[in-house]
Amino acid sequence: MASGRLLVEILSIGDELLIGQTVNTNAAWMGRLLEAEGWRVNRCVAVSDEDAAITEALVEAEARAELVLITGGLGPTRDDITKHVLCRHFDTELVRHPEIEARIEAWFASRGREILQVNRDQALLPAACTPLDNPLGTASGMWFERPGGVTVSMPGVPYEMEYIMSHGVLPAMRSRLEAEGRLPVRAHRSLLTMGTGESQLAARLGELEDALASRGVMLAYLPSPGSVRIRLTAEGESVDFLDTAHAEVMERLSDWVVSAQGNKVEEELARLWAAQGWTLALAESCTGGGLGAALVAQPGASAYFLGGVQAYANAVKEGMLGVDRELLAAHGAVSEEVARAMAEGVRQKLGADFGLSVTGIAGPDGGSEAKPVGTVYIACAGPSGTRCTLHKFGRDRTRNLGMTLRSAFQLALEVGRSALTEAKPASRVADSL
Amino acid sequence: MASGRLLVEILSIGDELLIGQTVNTNAAWMGRLLEAEGWRVNRCVAVSDEDAAITEALVEAEARAELVLITGGLGPTRDDITKHVLCRHFDTELVRHPEIEARIEAWFASRGREILQVNRDQALLPAACTPLDNPLGTASGMWFERPGGVTVSMPGVPYEMEYIMSHGVLPAMRSRLEAEGRLPVRAHRSLLTMGTGESQLAARLGELEDALASRGVMLAYLPSPGSVRIRLTAEGESVDFLDTAHAEVMERLSDWVVSAQGNKVEEELARLWAAQGWTLALAESCTGGGLGAALVAQPGASAYFLGGVQAYANAVKEGMLGVDRELLAAHGAVSEEVARAMAEGVRQKLGADFGLSVTGIAGPDGGSEAKPVGTVYIACAGPSGTRCTLHKFGRDRTRNLGMTLRSAFQLALEVGRSALTEAKPASRVADSL
Repeated sequence: MASGRLLVEILSIGDELLIGQTVNTNAAWMGRLLEAEGWRVNRCVAVSDEDAAITEALVEAEARAELVLITGGLGPTRDDITKHVLCRHFDTELVRHPEIEARIEAWFASRGREILQVNRDQALLPAACTPLDNPLGTASGMWFERPGGVTVSMPGVPYEMEYIMSHGVLPAMRSRLEAEGRLPVRAHRSLLTMGTGESQLAARLGELEDALASRGVMLAYLPSPGSVRIRLTAEGESVDFLDTAHAEVMERLSDWVVSAQGNKVEEELARLWAAQGWTLALAESCTGGGLGAALVAQPGASAYFLGGVQAYANAVKEGMLGVDRELLAAHGAVSEEVARAMAEGVRQKLGADFGLSVTGIAGPDGGSEAKPVGTVYIACAGPSGTRCTLHKFGRDRTRNLGMTLRSAFQLALEVGRSALTEAKPASRVADSL
Repeated sequence: MASGRLLVEILSIGDELLIGQTVNTNAAWMGRLLEAEGWRVNRCVAVSDEDAAITEALVEAEARAELVLITGGLGPTRDDITKHVLCRHFDTELVRHPEIEARIEAWFASRGREILQVNRDQALLPAACTPLDNPLGTASGMWFERPGGVTVSMPGVPYEMEYIMSHGVLPAMRSRLEAEGRLPVRAHRSLLTMGTGESQLAARLGELEDALASRGVMLAYLPSPGSVRIRLTAEGESVDFLDTAHAEVMERLSDWVVSAQGNKVEEELARLWAAQGWTLALAESCTGGGLGAALVAQPGASAYFLGGVQAYANAVKEGMLGVDRELLAAHGAVSEEVARAMAEGVRQKLGADFGLSVTGIAGPDGGSEAKPVGTVYIACAGPSGTRCTLHKFGRDRTRNLGMTLRSAFQLALEVGRSALTEAKPASRVADSL
């Protein structure tokens, strides 16, 4: 019987991962889930749809890890060979499960789609495995007991894998560990900073980082464009010290902390707006709707998000937001004046408490000497007036769009937090009269 | 000297990858680049920021692959240990490069940021390596010659890694292979289908798949929500047969092919609209701006994309799109009537050739028995009238939003392609009078 923390390896199968046609979001999703359980992911490996490659990686992973999680290669087509590789590896053969075949038939019937023999054959599973239910697709999960642990095979379709992980693998593994008295104790705290880099953050923390390490709290810096997330990790008894350590780090870095919980800036914005009963309207030029998409990606957006105008062409800035044609001609679409007019225009047109606008040159074309690619103006109009910021990002379109999103939410969050310390927004006052 | 196709392995370093705080987009980006070169990625491995884990994975990768590409762990903070691990692995020590230190100083000076000793120490590199220039950051790439091949270490920040790969690693590796007379011959064709699953596609291809395989052309099915990309791969002399094979597959699957090049549906839409000189306006409810964000993610969107209205709240549907309040009250916001009114409203308000709208219930809340979560109406208004489709997706918000995007672009593409075979759009005719 194994002891200590559960060691996990993830084995992702599919040529599409190696040649980059698919980004391995499955491994990241599983990593988050396993981490939350306090289990340790030791390694993530991606290999091609080849028998020898799969077998080699599987043998290695099973030698290191108590739980091996395989995804991919379970589709009905002939490039999907995982099931056959597993049969050979576990020295077993395929057997038909009539109850699974009946479920697959029902799955096709409910969708009005014709069922083929290859679909029925998804009910053929290795005799040595315990099937794990997959109501969202036709490929079952497979749980194999082996010397030293467990190997699980799941389809690569993300939501199918997620269902099998949540409803099959986790409960079974938890019961097993509980029976063995192996409850892991490990915890994290995170905080999100914006406005400086990781070296400046580390310098500000200085000797505090050593002091925390000596008490068992480790720090990690996780930079992404425009922000750095700092993660504190402790194990065993050090977990008790984690909240104190988090408070100390927060205090040192207070100039830059955007979220004390390590939330994304748009999550912080959503919480604040919903909590205050404020409404938000958007006027997006270069981002084309990306701000709104990021807001509605979070459930509950209707609590505060009214909508907005994707004012990509200048005619839309004029016609839908009331931006003055003279202003556009005099200053250009990418200017403080137009950013302010867009934010104020959308706030007024939609009757929102706050209006947030962006206008910029994302690239690769459209720049000039005075306004190079990466020039972005962001404005936030609220009951106490309008604030505008100028940003000079870089040359990469994708990065510029991402930086613009984060910076816009950051400005709105600052304006909102300032408003908390001022009078209540006028429209709210009006509502309560 | 090695022979044949260059075998590559990717080693990604960082706890954040294992616990899923970061999705490994670097590996996918490198995979696409290497694939395009005709080099073979054998395995992608992610390990933690631990000396033993990095060393073990590096030794294994070097035993298998001629080129090992390492990313991550080169930041200035103390959780970044890759450089020290490489020194031990290659039995070398850190030396300071004055010209790199000067560049780092200039990098900070140009940004008006204070430079710290840890930043200067980014000019300390293993003596055994050839530095690879990184003008986008402070961590240099490192090229190590070793028995059996080359190992390269790069920072994990995506755009820095991408620069070093494109400007440092690729040119050097190409020269090397050219000198050795090892020009790989391998090619792909892709096509994108929507509207059916991979088993139906495989059934329709039937014995054609075997016939192609016998001539050296292999097929792979790459499903994602709402679409299946089919990739044809050939090597050596079989490459000459690839276009014929592609045409045969296209013909069999013509009912479902959206892109003969395997492009995303929004890429096909952008091409068609730009080529025809058409304009497009959006009216987005549940997607909140996601359609527009997907369009502007592609450079050149200003050629056809005017903008739109993020009509999340009903008041915005009324006020900004002119949707009749009675219509909303009678049918609800998620209805064919409202979808049509939104598409026609935005087309008229923005003076666009085509108006595309979506309204639906993304979930997790807001569903009813008559209109469960996942119910989405999509409408496209053009010069020849308005088409509307009803979709019943599933319960997952993220998936529903993604399916809605793709289905909306698909409808617009169908309407646009129909328009090609009809008279020219009225507004174009008007323009040319």
